[in-house]
Amino acid sequence: MELTRREAIITLIVGATVAALVDADPAAEGGTTTMANATTLPPAYRGNHEPKPLPFDPAKLRGLSEKLLRSHHENNYTGAVKRLNLIQQQLGQLPKDAAPYQVGSLKREELIATNSMALHELYFGNLGGDGKASGTITDLVKAQYGSMETWEQEFRQTGLSLAGGPGWVILAFDPHVQGVHTYWSWDHTHSVASGTPLLIMDMYEHSYAMDYGANAKGYIDAFFQNVQWDEVNRRAERVRQ
Amino acid sequence: MELTRREAIITLIVGATVAALVDADPAAEGGTTTMANATTLPPAYRGNHEPKPLPFDPAKLRGLSEKLLRSHHENNYTGAVKRLNLIQQQLGQLPKDAAPYQVGSLKREELIATNSMALHELYFGNLGGDGKASGTITDLVKAQYGSMETWEQEFRQTGLSLAGGPGWVILAFDPHVQGVHTYWSWDHTHSVASGTPLLIMDMYEHSYAMDYGANAKGYIDAFFQNVQWDEVNRRAERVRQ
Amino acid sequence: MELTRREAIITLIVGATVAALVDADPAAEGGTTTMANATTLPPAYRGNHEPKPLPFDPAKLRGLSEKLLRSHHENNYTGAVKRLNLIQQQLGQLPKDAAPYQVGSLKREELIATNSMALHELYFGNLGGDGKASGTITDLVKAQYGSMETWEQEFRQTGLSLAGGPGWVILAFDPHVQGVHTYWSWDHTHSVASGTPLLIMDMYEHSYAMDYGANAKGYIDAFFQNVQWDEVNRRAERVRQ
Amino acid sequence: MELTRREAIITLIVGATVAALVDADPAAEGGTTTMANATTLPPAYRGNHEPKPLPFDPAKLRGLSEKLLRSHHENNYTGAVKRLNLIQQQLGQLPKDAAPYQVGSLKREELIATNSMALHELYFGNLGGDGKASGTITDLVKAQYGSMETWEQEFRQTGLSLAGGPGWVILAFDPHVQGVHTYWSWDHTHSVASGTPLLIMDMYEHSYAMDYGANAKGYIDAFFQNVQWDEVNRRAERVRQ
Repeated sequence: MELTRREAIITLIVGATVAALVDADPAAEGGTTTMANATTLPPAYRGNHEPKPLPFDPAKLRGLSEKLLRSHHENNYTGAVKRLNLIQQQLGQLPKDAAPYQVGSLKREELIATNSMALHELYFGNLGGDGKASGTITDLVKAQYGSMETWEQEFRQTGLSLAGGPGWVILAFDPHVQGVHTYWSWDHTHSVASGTPLLIMDMYEHSYAMDYGANAKGYIDAFFQNVQWDEVNRRAERVRQ
Repeated sequence: MELTRREAIITLIVGATVAALVDADPAAEGGTTTMANATTLPPAYRGNHEPKPLPFDPAKLRGLSEKLLRSHHENNYTGAVKRLNLIQQQLGQLPKDAAPYQVGSLKREELIATNSMALHELYFGNLGGDGKASGTITDLVKAQYGSMETWEQEFRQTGLSLAGGPGWVILAFDPHVQGVHTYWSWDHTHSVASGTPLLIMDMYEHSYAMDYGANAKGYIDAFFQNVQWDEVNRRAERVRQ
Repeated sequence: MELTRREAIITLIVGATVAALVDADPAAEGGTTTMANATTLPPAYRGNHEPKPLPFDPAKLRGLSEKLLRSHHENNYTGAVKRLNLIQQQLGQLPKDAAPYQVGSLKREELIATNSMALHELYFGNLGGDGKASGTITDLVKAQYGSMETWEQEFRQTGLSLAGGPGWVILAFDPHVQGVHTYWSWDHTHSVASGTPLLIMDMYEHSYAMDYGANAKGYIDAFFQNVQWDEVNRRAERVRQ
Repeated sequence: MELTRREAIITLIVGATVAALVDADPAAEGGTTTMANATTLPPAYRGNHEPKPLPFDPAKLRGLSEKLLRSHHENNYTGAVKRLNLIQQQLGQLPKDAAPYQVGSLKREELIATNSMALHELYFGNLGGDGKASGTITDLVKAQYGSMETWEQEFRQTGLSLAGGPGWVILAFDPHVQGVHTYWSWDHTHSVASGTPLLIMDMYEHSYAMDYGANAKGYIDAFFQNVQWDEVNRRAERVRQ
């Protein structure tokens, strides 16, 4: 039996859809969801991102409970990685003449899941420390904001402006000014287009509601007590090379 | 006469507002709008970004008129830079106890203007070439997408999905896969959080409506004929070091 | 041959996808795109919205060219109606165990296309008049804003804040205050949740760039010269009954 | 002493800002924040919205704790009403020549706070019942979706697609089809432009995280057990008159 090109494409889509029906379980823990045909796709569509473990002992943070941190890591972060894999595989199996809105809506989902993955990794990566800033990052902050206090004041206020909604506060190295700058970011779609993230604070309610309810200020206090500034310094030094 | 700290803050705000009333002219061409007190603020709030000139002769692009390119550069890009300056100065003069929504709404405007500035500079920077891809970038694209055709197909479809609305298509170097990936981006707020932009296509209607009306496909064809791939290669090589 | 329930679902999806491959032509003019199986679906998924013709002679508006108005109607409005039909049919054929992001991304596309359809119909519906406000609407505006001038000033400024981006300005009847209020709306996803739109101004660049380039102010002047206030009054009177 | 018009405007702004400095306390409970000069403004800028009490006994809902419901009402809903008042007063005191971005960013905050107020009132208004649908609404749902099950399946999936992020699911009466339709809504900015909301489900994490952590499905089950369908029927009958 010979397949026309169009039939071959349809077969691919069906394969992808069947695989999605069979394997897609966004609530399942562990492992990485994959579609049957994904391994024959180019790397961009293979969807083989692996969740990273928490880089600290979640029982040992000040003011952030193990239950909250594990739920955040397992449900929100790991869920995003798995979803990203599925989305990329679905993208790789779209027909060449898919309607633009079909491509666009999946590419939007891909951006959301990609940023959720990246920002969560950066966020967990800059937690687990003693909260005492020193070194390169304090020099960088003072050069732009005059003092750590001025900077922290705006960083905290930006966080509070996201209380009860979703978003991130991002201290990034901005190549335009060759220095650091704080950015407000509404949800996983938002980010600064040209810059390298150094310190990330998650303001999605799943970052704090279990422990703090609507008290975003209490969460921000706890966040600052646990910042791993050594990692922030490593990121800053990498970008300044 | 002595001022209390609170009166001093109020005076600052009034100064800023008066300056804004006097100088803010978002339609004016040339120069950079500044507020009276801005020079005494830390650099983060000084708002002294300068618009860059077009890096090519706008009379010489294929399929994109000089009128369109000049309007795009003077109104949309330069307007964003001036607005960014005003916003940062306003941020620098907010009182310490400003309501979070006041900080948040200005930080959002700052993100929009910052990304508009950065993405426009990258966009104009990757125009003015002969549209013939070669070198590092083709290796990077093939490594992830299998072929330039597969990549270009998705890049174009992502662009078409933004036709009639606003947004950007961004080919970025993604540190997660140590390779390139194309991202859909809705408006100036959207971007990929962790990655370095290499090739940028503006899909805001002001990029093409004057020349192409609603024919976004015609614009995308013209865009590809003018890509400055040498610049894309320079960006790619910088990030791979 | 007997089909299991799962196979039956898959067959439906394949049917839908094949139909989409065959019929989806977002650029085609006239007619309404339909999928093969759509007629057997419940009305919510049948996707049988029909574009309405322009309610005025596009050759006769002041300061808005026939070419612009026809392109706006045929490409942006009619395109949205056709896209909505396709999206609703696709939604109706999703398997019961589709991943939530698949449902969510299509529901988002449905919201965008629905609002684009509705707002464009309201916008074209309130054009074609002589621009002279009188009657019910002026009473309603004065009751809330003190004077037509105060209201028009804010309505115009809200429009200018959307220049170079996309969005709508919406004068709505708000049941909370039993009166009218002007709302800023960023793109087709945004709207006021509880209220009835009375006067709509489209600020997407496709509403003006062909005639006015980046001169949004010139477009707003033209808009006000062509408002069909009789229709605005009809809408206002319907909601006040 | 005579004031020029410009000085008078500046005085107004300063007044507003000082009042904002003094009175703005987004965390305070009870009462309504007001600015000194607000009473002399037209109603649109007076900002005198009053929070409504919960229309049910929060100790008596099934699967939603009193603590969660009170926090939701006092922090998220009441906070939005107070913020709306402040924003409208600030809008009313902007100078006539404010930069468009200043108007636009406040109008955006106004839309967010307005929709948050309206949707929360509708949400609390359709809770407190026995969860048993009957009457007008079931006829309307069946007419569009074929069965309550088909409709509920999509409504729930749409909710799940918002898990871990913010948003609303809205069953609205849509004048285009003279029937009901379910809409996905991302955050407080999103809504259906032309339609009347009948049944609202809040998917912001503050609606459930205190009781359910990341288990959005558990929350959706609880939501359906508490729907006040009589109120939904009242809304439906009002719109069908």
